[in-house]
This record gives sequence, C-alpha cells and structure tokens, in this order.
Amino acid sequence: MDWNKIYSSRMERVKPSAIMELIKVLGRKKVINFASGLPDASLFPTHDLKEIQDLVLQEDGAGALQYGPAEGYLPLREWVAEDLHQKGVPASANNILITHGSQQAIDLVARILLEPEDLLVLETPTYLAALQAFDSYGVLYRVVPMDGNGMRTSRLAGLLGSGKVKLIYTLPNYQNPTGITMSSERREELVQISQRYGVPILSDEAYIDLRYDGDELPMLHKLGKSSNVISTGTFSKTIVPGIRVGWVVAPEEVVEKLSQVKQITDLHSNSFAQRVVHRYCKGGKLPAQIERLRSAYRGKRDALLGALDKYFYGLGEWHRPSGGMFMLIRLYGGGRADEILKRALDEGVAFVPGASFFPDGGGGDTIRLNFVSPPLGDIEDGVKRLAQVVKESK
Amino acid sequence: MDWNKIYSSRMERVKPSAIMELIKVLGRKKVINFASGLPDASLFPTHDLKEIQDLVLQEDGAGALQYGPAEGYLPLREWVAEDLHQKGVPASANNILITHGSQQAIDLVARILLEPEDLLVLETPTYLAALQAFDSYGVLYRVVPMDGNGMRTSRLAGLLGSGKVKLIYTLPNYQNPTGITMSSERREELVQISQRYGVPILSDEAYIDLRYDGDELPMLHKLGKSSNVISTGTFSKTIVPGIRVGWVVAPEEVVEKLSQVKQITDLHSNSFAQRVVHRYCKGGKLPAQIERLRSAYRGKRDALLGALDKYFYGLGEWHRPSGGMFMLIRLYGGGRADEILKRALDEGVAFVPGASFFPDGGGGDTIRLNFVSPPLGDIEDGVKRLAQVVKESK
Repeated sequence: MDWNKIYSSRMERVKPSAIMELIKVLGRKKVINFASGLPDASLFPTHDLKEIQDLVLQEDGAGALQYGPAEGYLPLREWVAEDLHQKGVPASANNILITHGSQQAIDLVARILLEPEDLLVLETPTYLAALQAFDSYGVLYRVVPMDGNGMRTSRLAGLLGSGKVKLIYTLPNYQNPTGITMSSERREELVQISQRYGVPILSDEAYIDLRYDGDELPMLHKLGKSSNVISTGTFSKTIVPGIRVGWVVAPEEVVEKLSQVKQITDLHSNSFAQRVVHRYCKGGKLPAQIERLRSAYRGKRDALLGALDKYFYGLGEWHRPSGGMFMLIRLYGGGRADEILKRALDEGVAFVPGASFFPDGGGGDTIRLNFVSPPLGDIEDGVKRLAQVVKESK
Repeated sequence: MDWNKIYSSRMERVKPSAIMELIKVLGRKKVINFASGLPDASLFPTHDLKEIQDLVLQEDGAGALQYGPAEGYLPLREWVAEDLHQKGVPASANNILITHGSQQAIDLVARILLEPEDLLVLETPTYLAALQAFDSYGVLYRVVPMDGNGMRTSRLAGLLGSGKVKLIYTLPNYQNPTGITMSSERREELVQISQRYGVPILSDEAYIDLRYDGDELPMLHKLGKSSNVISTGTFSKTIVPGIRVGWVVAPEEVVEKLSQVKQITDLHSNSFAQRVVHRYCKGGKLPAQIERLRSAYRGKRDALLGALDKYFYGLGEWHRPSGGMFMLIRLYGGGRADEILKRALDEGVAFVPGASFFPDGGGGDTIRLNFVSPPLGDIEDGVKRLAQVVKESK
C-alpha cells in the first residue's frame, strides 16, 4: 500500500517540527536547557491538585467521568467569563468555549475561518505551532515587522487595503519568541484598523497572566468591544499544561460554530480536568499561584538579563521581556544560529535557533531562550558558556 | 462585523447535530431515556480511578502535569500495542498514537487523508459523528447497504473499480446504530477487496470489548496484516469517557503523519489521563471491569430484546446485537419516527430517530435505542410505552 499517494494535499505543508524534534533529543541530554518550551515543573501546584481531584471524584464523580457538552463545563465557562470581565472584556459564558489547550483553540479558529489561498496577516517572528496550524489550512502570509512596541501597526493599512485579508494573528503580551509586548497605542491602532477594514483579529493570550513588571495593558478584546476580536488563552502556563485546558472567547455566533467543530474534532474537553481547573480557580487558589510564578520567573528573567549584560555585550541585541517565558537574541554578524547550536550542545547548553519562527524566512541570526525552565542557579553559567561559543564562532 | 461572510467554505457542511441537541434537552427531562449516547455511569470504576490518580500524582506528578510527546505516553502506547497483539494484530508502540478519544482518532485520520470531492465508501446506516467529521472535509459518499452480517461486501468491487475511492469506513463490531456485527466471511472479503484495489480501510473499533455472546471475530487489522488497515479505539466504553483517551493503530509511516497533525491540533493528549489509564490497565484491572460491563449490559440487552418480542411483535424488525450499546428498529409502515418521538416524549420515553445515521437519506422509519444507559428496571416499561405510541400513530 503506497500511503504517499493518498495523503491529502494539506499534508504537503505539514512537516515535523525541527524544534519539537530538538526538544525531544534534549530531553535526554544533560544540558543547561534554554531550548525547551516547558514551564518550571517545580512550581506546579501538585498538592492542591491532588486534594481537588479527590474532592471532584467524591462529589461529582459521575459528571467528571461521563461525556460532557462540546462547549465545555458550564461553571468553568462562567468562571473564565468572569475572569475576563475583570480584565475589562464584556463576556458571558456563551462567549466561551473550553478547549484542549490553547493550541486547539487556535486550530479550531483556523478551521472555521481559513481555507487555501486565504491571506493571513501576522507579526514576524511569531509562535511556531500557530504557523504550523495555519500552514495546514493552506493560507498565505503577509508579514508585519516588529519593534520593541510590538507589531508595527502603521504597516497594516497597506496590507488590509487589498480587501483580501481573512485574519490578523498576534500575541500582544510577552510574545513567543521575542518576549515583546505590544504598546497601548499600537493596540488601539490595531483594533481600529481591524474594525475599519472588517478583518477579525485572533489574539493569542497564552502568557497574559505572567506579567513581571509594568502596567497591565488593555486586552485587544476590551478595545474591540468583543465584536471583531477572538482571543485564546490557557491554564497551561498558570496551573499546569499536562491536563490540557484552554479557552476561546469570541462573539456568541462564532462560539456556536467553534462548538460544532469542537464536537467533530474530539466531542468535548476532558470533563474531569475541566472540573479540577474550575474548582482550583473557584476556590481562589489562582491569584497566589500566579504570584508564586511571577516571583520565581521574574527572578529567572532578571538572572538572564543580568548575565546577558555581563557576557553578551557586543555580541547581539534583545528586548527586555516584561513577562512570559521567552526572549529572542539577534546575534551581530549574521546568521549562524544552527552552527552555534551544535557547538553549544558540546559545551552543555541548548537553545532554539529562531529561524523557524520567521514565516517569511530570515532569522538565521536569532536564538530563542526559555528563561523559566532552567534552574535559577544554572542561568548565569549557561549564558557564560553560550557567549563563549558565540565569540568563538565569529 | 459580518462573520457569515468569512467562515471557511467547509463550514457549509458543518451543522449542529440534531441528535446532540435532542440529547441536551433530554438530559433535563424525566424520561426513560433510550436516546442517549452514554454508557452507564453507575458502572464507572470511580473508586479504583481515585486510588490510581493519587498514586500517579505521588509517583510521577511532574510528568503527569507537564507537556508530553504528540504520539502519546510511551508506556500506554506499549500497553495498547500489547493488547492488540493479543487480538492477533502485529503492532508495536510505534504503530500507536494516543488521542483525545476515538472521535479525535477518526478526525485525524480524515485530516491526513481526505479532501474535497474525495470518494468515501461506507456502510449505511453508520456512526453519525464520523459522518459529521467526514462532511467537514468535503468528501462524497458511496454507500453500501447492510444486512444481518454487516456491510454487503459483494457490492464493493463495483464501487472500488472506479479507482477514485480514497477510504472505506466501517464499524465491524456491534455497529452504532444497528448493533450489527460483520461476519468472518465478510471481513475476509472486505480486506481482500481493499488490498486488491489499494484502498485503505478505517475500522472503528469503539465497541470491540463489549461482546455479550458469540465468538470473538478477527479484527480487520489482523486479516489485513496491518498494511492497509487503520483502526481506532477508545477507553471511553470500557473505563470512562470523560477523560478522553483513545488510540489509533496504523502503519508506522501513517502514525508519523498522524502525530504531526495531532501536534498541530492540540499538541498532545492529556498527560495525566494517559498515565491513569495506563496504570489502570497495567495493574490488571481492565478484564474484571470489562466482565462487569458485559454482565450488566448483557442483562439490559436481554431485557430490551425480551420486551421487544413481547410488545413490538408486528410493529417492526431489528437485528439482535451480540454486543455494544445500540440497536436500530425499522418500523413497519413507513417513515414517521420524528412524529412518534414527539408523542413518545409525552409518554415519558425517548429515542433517537435513525434518519441522521443514513448518509444517503432514508431511515425515516427507523429508531435507535441505547440499551445500556437506562436502568434495567425501566427497560420493559419504556418499550411498552413506546409500543403503545407506535400503535397509535399507525
């Protein structure tokens, strides 16, 4: 049986992720690992989750283990809506779909909106796994460069004026891979342009609660008064990723479409995990957990920035992330991140070459660092070793 | 913002499920409910799961709550392969992808294989939610009628001879909605024809372990020596559905493609749920649980068949299911299941009109009964009431 003859044509654009393969290999090596996409497991609220799980099974075992509605567990939808309300977004439970993580939220939005040849506007570089999802729908990209204030929104009018753009994708907060946050002014401008041209925005809010300094900036969803913005989020970065609970907030009619596709895709999200997350949040445990993460991750970020100032002076440039998990360094002297990675691994330090995050090519001179995953005490040593390799590869 | 203008064209074929809507409404009514798609929650091994969950978090909390590989938790993949091995299927862990339930398994297979205008051969009637997934890929159906021995495979050569068929979808065991099991001879013939024409088979094995009498028949996967058969299965019917753990077994190269798409779709399946299921199975608890289900469900099936013999004589015809959860009754005198449902609800009994399960139309004279969900003691009364309504609607 020659399977290659019968794969759908969309599979031509579905490729194994070089990063995921790298991360798999690194999982087995002893290195100072800035390459992973993982949060710090030592901060997981395992004890609380164990208690809550027992309670959920005791008090609502039949519900937690039975099939459930495609839209999600209503009390969790209500909680997410309430949480968004506090962030200034006028949402009710009917605006919320619970998903298996925010990757599924992104894929479902793509599935209801995108088809081959559709134009998608995004900032470059951007989140790789979103690109992979969009790729599978056969879309074409129109990219907008970034600076320290995020997507350069002044470039948007020229792109949207063609009338053919289907969607704008952005990560306004502590973007993966750059760590950059979009400024208030840019947010206003983005939403206004989107409304003017009738092009919806998909705002990826995976990192929104991981803010280490600076003010909380308004969600695009708040600025857009919900009418033309779809936002996605997740409990993966604040509680734990392994139980796969994320969400979409969107106009009610869009949530209906998303729910129909969710049902086709996997019927509904894990009934038990939704109840555990709901009970965790409803019990008021989330704010303290977020503070705990912020404090630990802020410390790691500061350690990384300090080490970069010390060892990377003259080797490259970067933006100071005010939240999130990642930052991107652009090395002076051109693209050689792949080659540096090989040598770095020999020196016991790992990162992800940034090129995969650039939908239009380029970025061969960039490296992405995850600063929350390695132990605090390893960060300076890791940067020191990495700087040495960079110097030697000049 | 006019969202209707920007939905992808695939959404034209994605519709809310009439059955799902019905089931939602029924969930709130006090009726004898033959309509649900649910297993019997009173048989969930809640106590065992609670113990196992605590152990998993205690011994492998960081792994259970962290991101995991797209293919699934390796020990669970190994266990599924071993279980299939015992059913005569030569599988190793590399042939297994763990999914969020077998609905996702079906959708992922569709996603790697199907595109608009592709021809899909299936028996009629067939599993509604699979049809909904296939619909979303824009395929066209070529249907094969069934009799008491399953898909009438003698019709296949005529259909596959065109050279344009992409996939054959079948539920060989205790089919939803009919309860029919494909005979050994038909299985042999189906696999041979599939091999002769180079058309793969997607064999939906959701109910395979729910056998109440008769011999265990060979899996298509066994007969096909794995080369042209993809099978999907689930722990939803044997352990619990709420934690969404299913699987695909396929040639290794196909599993690689499925894993790439799985990653795009939702990164990976719930790390915690996979470990709980693995520990449950590895600890040897599954056989006793399956026996418990078989015994209870066999009793309910017998109660239904007995009541049908008593009250439905002369009103319709059906096939005796030797396993599974569902059976289909064809009413004598033509299509009026919708109308009967309305009256039945007034009499406190619910079922699902069968028409949605017929991809080529028809079936207006059929009703699907779930015999495992209602309490044993309600079954005879439910059938009696239903028979009365059918008589009065003649």
